[in-house]
Amino acid sequence: MPERTVQLVEVSPRDGLQAESVVLSTAAKVELIERIVAAGARRVEVCSFVNPARVPQMADAEAVLAALPQRDDVTYIGLVLNRRGFDRAAAAGIREINVVAVATDTFGQRNQGATSDETVATFEAIAGLAIAAGIAPTLTISTAFGCPYEGAVRVDRVVDIAKRAVAAGATEVAIADTIGVAVPTDVTERVAAVRSVLEPGVGLRAHFHNTRNTGIANAYAAYEAGVEAIDASLGGIGGCPFAPNATGNVPTEDVAYLFERMGVDTGLDLAKLIETVPWIEAQLGSRVPGLLAKAGLFP
Amino acid sequence: MPERTVQLVEVSPRDGLQAESVVLSTAAKVELIERIVAAGARRVEVCSFVNPARVPQMADAEAVLAALPQRDDVTYIGLVLNRRGFDRAAAAGIREINVVAVATDTFGQRNQGATSDETVATFEAIAGLAIAAGIAPTLTISTAFGCPYEGAVRVDRVVDIAKRAVAAGATEVAIADTIGVAVPTDVTERVAAVRSVLEPGVGLRAHFHNTRNTGIANAYAAYEAGVEAIDASLGGIGGCPFAPNATGNVPTEDVAYLFERMGVDTGLDLAKLIETVPWIEAQLGSRVPGLLAKAGLFP
Repeated sequence: MPERTVQLVEVSPRDGLQAESVVLSTAAKVELIERIVAAGARRVEVCSFVNPARVPQMADAEAVLAALPQRDDVTYIGLVLNRRGFDRAAAAGIREINVVAVATDTFGQRNQGATSDETVATFEAIAGLAIAAGIAPTLTISTAFGCPYEGAVRVDRVVDIAKRAVAAGATEVAIADTIGVAVPTDVTERVAAVRSVLEPGVGLRAHFHNTRNTGIANAYAAYEAGVEAIDASLGGIGGCPFAPNATGNVPTEDVAYLFERMGVDTGLDLAKLIETVPWIEAQLGSRVPGLLAKAGLFP
Repeated sequence: MPERTVQLVEVSPRDGLQAESVVLSTAAKVELIERIVAAGARRVEVCSFVNPARVPQMADAEAVLAALPQRDDVTYIGLVLNRRGFDRAAAAGIREINVVAVATDTFGQRNQGATSDETVATFEAIAGLAIAAGIAPTLTISTAFGCPYEGAVRVDRVVDIAKRAVAAGATEVAIADTIGVAVPTDVTERVAAVRSVLEPGVGLRAHFHNTRNTGIANAYAAYEAGVEAIDASLGGIGGCPFAPNATGNVPTEDVAYLFERMGVDTGLDLAKLIETVPWIEAQLGSRVPGLLAKAGLFP
């Protein structure tokens, strides 16, 4: 039987912390990332090159990146939303960037001040620059399963964006359930539809929020449908601050427990992940939604 | 395409309330059951005929049952653990009983004061009496996925119990993840193994706790594996008070959202379920773990 694997991309340092009101020190962020890497994470979204006035938590992006140990086996990812952010990321020596395009105009206008098409065009422009600079450009399609303002999102809209991303040179495309409305059949359908337009070598990643308690089932369905990578956040911290009532990302340790117990290798050490949960709770001064750290390992 | 359906058996009035420290009045329990039935539930575990000294919340079993409107399309289920409980249930006019057998000796000794075999023998004795009295006997196999004391539980032990249950006349067999350790592949494997020894007409039900955040994924996997029924509890209240760190049953409204949005008919009205969540929170004086009522319906 072939070895079964899935990669969990750790997003707590960026997508997780961004939604938290407590601003962590650069040293604390670096410690979080180092703890997660020590637990086996090999791709980590570590910072966001956005306007510090808008997202104070991410103001120290360059400092975080500079403080991290450079390892050939670990990829640090920076979020980039425009040309200015790309220039900062490139200057900081990032090797992989993630850009977010939105699937609906209303969410795009309210979240990024741009229509859906405009956010895709931004990726197209940045991807070219990234490739020329030897930086891997990945695209996350947000509200790919539903929009809080426009409701259901058509599969063909998501597929069209994926096609444009591939044509622009994306090394990976992600579909994100930004507001946590997806169910497993949605996942199966959209993974297959997006996969059909990806060229060989272009990865497919999924991003789920557990807003309506379907996030872990969706992660399982995404794996079954063949995604290579799934975003997850230690303790389940974070979520989109612009999505009403968002309750956060799927917890890394809970998703890792599910896959490891299924015999699917995540490369993660569950005990080390669990040890880090009370640490991040102490840093944030609040409890996190993840459950494995409360319940403990089994058997 | 054939209509896809799954039955959610509502267990909040018994399994849910039993783990709560606040004891509800008979009138409040009846109102809970009536609200859930009004939301579409057609099988409801309403009470437990156990020693009132041990489980004070269930002391008014007869009074609850007597106060409920008798409807041909609604089945009220009573939990029975011994002959004395069966006699009470039969005298109260119950039409379906559920008996719990345990898959491991240590959990059985600590929870019910009996070995695994002894709990199965109890079902065998009660099932005969029930059938003679025109009462449907169902068996739930607890710790069917793992035991807090003995660890992993062998599939063949669960299958052996299911065989004995069928031979004794069980109308339905349930496999219960009492301590919330199961993952979807466990569910697929155990559902198939148990199904293989059930005679035609004997139902297969599954019971999950969300202790490690895998409960909703397991409910999805159980449906995909072909179970007819899944236990769920409004708001996710309850869980086994004897299982360490149990965090409760899967929330009815969250599971129903997943299935309904997948196009699988549960017969439940999501809006009515959600309306009842703040009501039960007010009755219990605490928040419940279910998420749909906080996040709202979509679209």
